[in-house]
Amino acid sequence: MQSHENSDSDTSQQTEYSLLQVNGAWNRQTGGQSQKEGRLSAAKIFQRTSEHGLSWTVVSPIVFTYRVIQCHNLLDVGNDTLLCGHIEDQEELKAFRSKTKPIKRFIVIDETVNQLYGSQVTRYFEARNVLYRILPLPTTEENKSMELVTRILEEVHKFGIDRRSEPLIAIGGGVCLDVVGLAASLYRRRTPYIRVPTTLLSYIDASVGAKTGVNFANGKNKLGSYIPPVATFLDRTFIRTVPRRQVSNGMAEMLKMALMKHRGLFELLETEGRYLLDSSFQSRDKFSGCCDLEDAASLSTRIAIETMLEELAPNLWEDDLDRLVDFGHLVSPELEMKVLPALLHGEAVNIDMSFMVYVAHQKGLLTGEEKARISRCMLGLELPVWHQDCTLALVQKSLSERLKHSAGSLRMPLPKGLGCAEIFHDISDEFLCQAFKSWCDELGSS
Amino acid sequence: MQSHENSDSDTSQQTEYSLLQVNGAWNRQTGGQSQKEGRLSAAKIFQRTSEHGLSWTVVSPIVFTYRVIQCHNLLDVGNDTLLCGHIEDQEELKAFRSKTKPIKRFIVIDETVNQLYGSQVTRYFEARNVLYRILPLPTTEENKSMELVTRILEEVHKFGIDRRSEPLIAIGGGVCLDVVGLAASLYRRRTPYIRVPTTLLSYIDASVGAKTGVNFANGKNKLGSYIPPVATFLDRTFIRTVPRRQVSNGMAEMLKMALMKHRGLFELLETEGRYLLDSSFQSRDKFSGCCDLEDAASLSTRIAIETMLEELAPNLWEDDLDRLVDFGHLVSPELEMKVLPALLHGEAVNIDMSFMVYVAHQKGLLTGEEKARISRCMLGLELPVWHQDCTLALVQKSLSERLKHSAGSLRMPLPKGLGCAEIFHDISDEFLCQAFKSWCDELGSS
Ligand SMILES: NC(=O)c1ccc[n+]([C@@H]2O[C@H](COP(=O)([O-])OP(=O)(O)OC[C@H]3O[C@@H](n4cnc5c(N)ncnc54)[C@H](O)[C@@H]3O)[C@@H](O)[C@H]2O)c1
Ligand SMILES: NC(=O)c1ccc[n+]([C@@H]2O[C@H](COP(=O)([O-])OP(=O)(O)OC[C@H]3O[C@@H](n4cnc5c(N)ncnc54)[C@H](O)[C@@H]3O)[C@@H](O)[C@H]2O)c1
Ligand SMILES: [Zn+2]
Ligand SMILES: [Zn+2]
Repeated sequence: MQSHENSDSDTSQQTEYSLLQVNGAWNRQTGGQSQKEGRLSAAKIFQRTSEHGLSWTVVSPIVFTYRVIQCHNLLDVGNDTLLCGHIEDQEELKAFRSKTKPIKRFIVIDETVNQLYGSQVTRYFEARNVLYRILPLPTTEENKSMELVTRILEEVHKFGIDRRSEPLIAIGGGVCLDVVGLAASLYRRRTPYIRVPTTLLSYIDASVGAKTGVNFANGKNKLGSYIPPVATFLDRTFIRTVPRRQVSNGMAEMLKMALMKHRGLFELLETEGRYLLDSSFQSRDKFSGCCDLEDAASLSTRIAIETMLEELAPNLWEDDLDRLVDFGHLVSPELEMKVLPALLHGEAVNIDMSFMVYVAHQKGLLTGEEKARISRCMLGLELPVWHQDCTLALVQKSLSERLKHSAGSLRMPLPKGLGCAEIFHDISDEFLCQAFKSWCDELGSS
Repeated sequence: MQSHENSDSDTSQQTEYSLLQVNGAWNRQTGGQSQKEGRLSAAKIFQRTSEHGLSWTVVSPIVFTYRVIQCHNLLDVGNDTLLCGHIEDQEELKAFRSKTKPIKRFIVIDETVNQLYGSQVTRYFEARNVLYRILPLPTTEENKSMELVTRILEEVHKFGIDRRSEPLIAIGGGVCLDVVGLAASLYRRRTPYIRVPTTLLSYIDASVGAKTGVNFANGKNKLGSYIPPVATFLDRTFIRTVPRRQVSNGMAEMLKMALMKHRGLFELLETEGRYLLDSSFQSRDKFSGCCDLEDAASLSTRIAIETMLEELAPNLWEDDLDRLVDFGHLVSPELEMKVLPALLHGEAVNIDMSFMVYVAHQKGLLTGEEKARISRCMLGLELPVWHQDCTLALVQKSLSERLKHSAGSLRMPLPKGLGCAEIFHDISDEFLCQAFKSWCDELGSS
């Protein structure tokens, strides 16, 4: 057998080309010729000749830009944020506002949210003279599938939208935002969309990153994309009607950010957590702005979003596998799919975090007092800290799955003191068993 | 009605933040503090306060890198390109080659290609001790749908692959590559995939860019993504078995690049077109390499790919709407879906180009002689230059659709002389009618 392995030996020649646009056509050029006039691309082509022939390597950066806007009274007919808040360019905005042609918008709204806010939404688009179509859908975790995506796509196609200037709008919890995001990613290979989160969880988490997704073959978010919305509009007034358990659910993701990187947020949740829960994150003073640093609701959501954006922006496509935001998400996906619909996403996340706190304590990263403070805080937020279906076998399976999918390293974020973290790359099974045992002993009856 | 329009007046404050990773956590920092040690991200966050509250703008670049390799004898068991040609990093390649753990690969192959090359493909993976699963599918234009994507996803999920290191492999024509590409884009939000084109059309076109897609609601490629493969392996020997009409079909896309930006390629197609068709792009000399500049098959495919890469690399996500590669693709999508399956993709493209040549002549961009040379060349390549279903109404509808979807401008590339082009932003209806009339008069009977 003749062996001609594909080894681009170091002796192979490589030429680096820049790309310059002259008279509408792009042309390759090597470094030396850059005196020509024209538009230079950020992309490059590397050409190589080896014993097997020719190869070209294309390196092409795509810049994603999106806006997250915290605002009040999004559905007030006097507020045009919902229609043009995504437009950053001042000239374009001016043109938009002076347009006489009717604006067209396709809106997908969670069924429950529609019952609560539907008439307000309709009134908004009517008053603004928009050519609109509102599609209410049962966007629940059990329905979070490709079928729902297809349903949306069919309706969008029937309605007809301009792929450049008429963003889809999603109004609802994380499921609604994820499903619409995926539909928009696929339609004409990418159609802009806007996220309007209506639960606490989606307000601080699902709304600020690039991820979209649906469940598939019994796997959580197995299909999806990394296409950010053009804009997310955050309005805390929606949370007023969110059931208490769902608010608590969202606070788990908030606690995650607190434990990983913000001691101040942790302390706020410790002292004001119960109050935030009681008040559904509505401000004490009805007229307090979003930047009121005295107001717990305003301050906690702001810190949660800012810390989340810090972690997501540099790693939008999750190419870096070392992610603090994965805390609470190593064991929870398995647990969530197993006990669906008994546990909500944040609840499963909290059970995962609660266990990991025991692992961190076992490792000497947290003192006994810190561990106890965290557990107390979780219970104060009315979050489950233990679950019978979160067995040692499930933990082991989840971690070995993660090991398989994270390039040979566990990459397990653990809290180190309060508001600090470190990522660990392995853990002995013995260690895991011990932590699991104390976790069950101490919290198993709760 | 109280009016508080979302006008970020110029007086609003804006802060620009860079992102620095210290001890595993990403932190925002303003320009002044950049003396701190840590990893700096290319992403930025711009924060602004206006009368409506807070807003953050995230700007985050994602770099796509992919390889296009021209090689011989891809299915030779002695050649490991198919298994590791996508690995650019020399250390990683070394590690891959010394691995003892079995390699796992999931392969989707066009049914017809499987009949012709299936045993060779199987032999390859057997001899190389790969844990493989080959899925033959009827990847035809009529089947190019989301159902086929789902079918692939189900099988991939059952088989189980590592989302980081076990790329899917697609072997077939453009339909197969497009469908597998979309499945890979969706699986776990992005799984690497490899393209092995087996038709001339997919060799020079579908294989070198980022586009994936399926037809939807009677629309051509209405759903899809812009996710490039990790690698494309080009092997001209597959074209040997492609039916003559399909080879001719691929030459239409080659002619497109020639007319838009490469006079040399046009002349090559004029003089050697017939020979290339007769020989199915196999080299005269069996042992001539891919870089043989004397060999018409080698030279023409190389120029086609290089000119295509030049146009695609700077505009991978088609954000720039002025695209020379759109030549022949303004009217053809409508025509293609209307007469499916009577016309092949390249044939529809050629009919579109043939008409546009008349428009260009009408505009004085081409002399009568140049126009005649192009038509003769098309006929020499055995491509249709006219079609009864390409009516004036269809042309008008296509162009007005394009106008709607291209931000208010037609962006119509037209040849200007041979191997040069210009993009036009409008065309009068009268002009269109005249060009259409002469086109029908001169070529209508052909
Ligand atoms: N894309 C991401 O980055 C990301 C991040 C976190 C979570 N998620 C996903 O988000 C989902 C969880 O989000 P969720 O907790 O918002 O769940 P959800 O969308 O299922 O909403 C929870 C419930 O609240 C109801 N609801 C929504 N808004 C309401 C309101 N204003 N008043 C009263 N009821 C309201 C809904 O009808 C639903 O029954 C999961 O599928 C998870 O995978 C995605
Ligand atoms: N993604 C892109 O950038 C891009 C670019 C151009 C075209 N396309 C898409 O590609 C498709 C057209 O591609 P195509 O022309 O390759 O069509 P195709 O995939 O339908 O293949 C054409 C026919 O040739 C057969 N075939 C394939 N390889 C063969 C071989 N080696 N020997 C004998 N028969 C063989 C196939 O079975 C099929 O019947 C269209 O759907 C078009 O939208 C995509
Ligand atoms: Zn989560
Ligand atoms: Zn084409």
